[in-house]
Amino acid sequence: MEKIVSLQNSRIKQISKLQAKARERKTTGLFVIEGAREISLAIEGGYSIESVFVCYELFSKSDYPELLKQVRSNFLFEVSEAVFEKIAYREGSDGLLALAKPKSHHLNDLKLPENPFIILLEAVEKPGNLGAILRTADASGADAVVVCDPLTDIYNPNIIRSSVGCLFTVPVAVCSNSEALEFMKSGGIKIYAAELSATRRYHETDFTVPSSIVMGTEADGLTGFWLENADARIKIPMRGKIDSLNVSVSTAVITFEAMRQRDFKSNY
Amino acid sequence: MEKIVSLQNSRIKQISKLQAKARERKTTGLFVIEGAREISLAIEGGYSIESVFVCYELFSKSDYPELLKQVRSNFLFEVSEAVFEKIAYREGSDGLLALAKPKSHHLNDLKLPENPFIILLEAVEKPGNLGAILRTADASGADAVVVCDPLTDIYNPNIIRSSVGCLFTVPVAVCSNSEALEFMKSGGIKIYAAELSATRRYHETDFTVPSSIVMGTEADGLTGFWLENADARIKIPMRGKIDSLNVSVSTAVITFEAMRQRDFKSNY
Repeated sequence: MEKIVSLQNSRIKQISKLQAKARERKTTGLFVIEGAREISLAIEGGYSIESVFVCYELFSKSDYPELLKQVRSNFLFEVSEAVFEKIAYREGSDGLLALAKPKSHHLNDLKLPENPFIILLEAVEKPGNLGAILRTADASGADAVVVCDPLTDIYNPNIIRSSVGCLFTVPVAVCSNSEALEFMKSGGIKIYAAELSATRRYHETDFTVPSSIVMGTEADGLTGFWLENADARIKIPMRGKIDSLNVSVSTAVITFEAMRQRDFKSNY
Repeated sequence: MEKIVSLQNSRIKQISKLQAKARERKTTGLFVIEGAREISLAIEGGYSIESVFVCYELFSKSDYPELLKQVRSNFLFEVSEAVFEKIAYREGSDGLLALAKPKSHHLNDLKLPENPFIILLEAVEKPGNLGAILRTADASGADAVVVCDPLTDIYNPNIIRSSVGCLFTVPVAVCSNSEALEFMKSGGIKIYAAELSATRRYHETDFTVPSSIVMGTEADGLTGFWLENADARIKIPMRGKIDSLNVSVSTAVITFEAMRQRDFKSNY
């Protein structure tokens, strides 16, 4: 295996561009995954890995003994530490980085169970919040995350990092508000819109039926579109000086309440 | 009011040191608060403000018309934009920064209601996580946050920022593990230790009595000290590929379940 030591290497330059620019990801049909765990989850999630870059000064093979065997040798590149530092986006990277091909994220590709629970996000602003919500979706067992009109593509390195790889394990659809509404309505899925000024408390809401929660931005909440089209508006009661929660925390509180209700129903 | 335009001004140099170094905060008995909202909350929370620095190019007085009136004029300093940029820690700062005096954070100073709910954190690693938990504590109405053996002082600028000022609104105590244990035991407060491998689910736990939850670090969880001394170990069921949640998310899920139970009890 040839070792890449030049920062001017064309592959290296491309990786930097892919990390920084959504447009580059779109035109090339590639995105970057950093970290052995994240790459493993992507493989497990059925993503197609195009090439892998390893820095043996940083990578501890013993943690993931099987991982590199899954990569065809002509698509495995060794890089020097200086080169790896240039292409790695996050600090404390573990010496492994891959280029992969995006999946399709059409609503109609979602494979949902009979009684789904879906997290719907309207115009989520910060990549870190979307990543955190994907992590919560994975842990809670939510059936899908639907992202309406995102401000960045979902393969933004900040989203991948903050999702700790859950972008690859959770079914994700990207669409417009009206497509999402049509999907929920035609599927008989209840729509609960989170709103600070709602009167119904989230835990007085029946999540044991097919349901979705719609979360807005931290700054402005949901637009009228969802407030008007929802089956109900729900709130998390606020008892403090600050009447807001981080959007990933609000999403987790409501999602785990839904799962609690479903646990309870299936146990008794 | 004299306008400070020199980066070499001794007050300006001191602010930079206070932002960066816990030791400087300790020896001077001062810490930095950035942002009009945060300063307002600190004043409301009974903190003593030592001086205020305002950059009129950035500060929009109309948002907080009363705030500067609360500061005695000989402790109000105008600074240039260049100076403000030097002393401001966060991006998008709103042109207001204050030096304030820490409060006492002894356990025995906590004023608790008859049936308290307390969040106890063992060795929380990241300032951002502690800040996020303080925000959740405020919104949920938790009665106190007890921080055991913190790795940084609680006036770290990252904690203040990520708490969006809730450091000043939530009763906070700092102590050792054994002091916290003695406090809970002598007060008849149940101790529930969060542990991934526990068998009891968090929502099968009675939080309507005086209770505390103990949260460990994301990487290692709780030490044996809390696992052994707790009244019960509880878990959030994990249903995904990744068996972990962000510690601020776990704390929020359990805390809001406790509040749900208490709401329910008081309503019916």
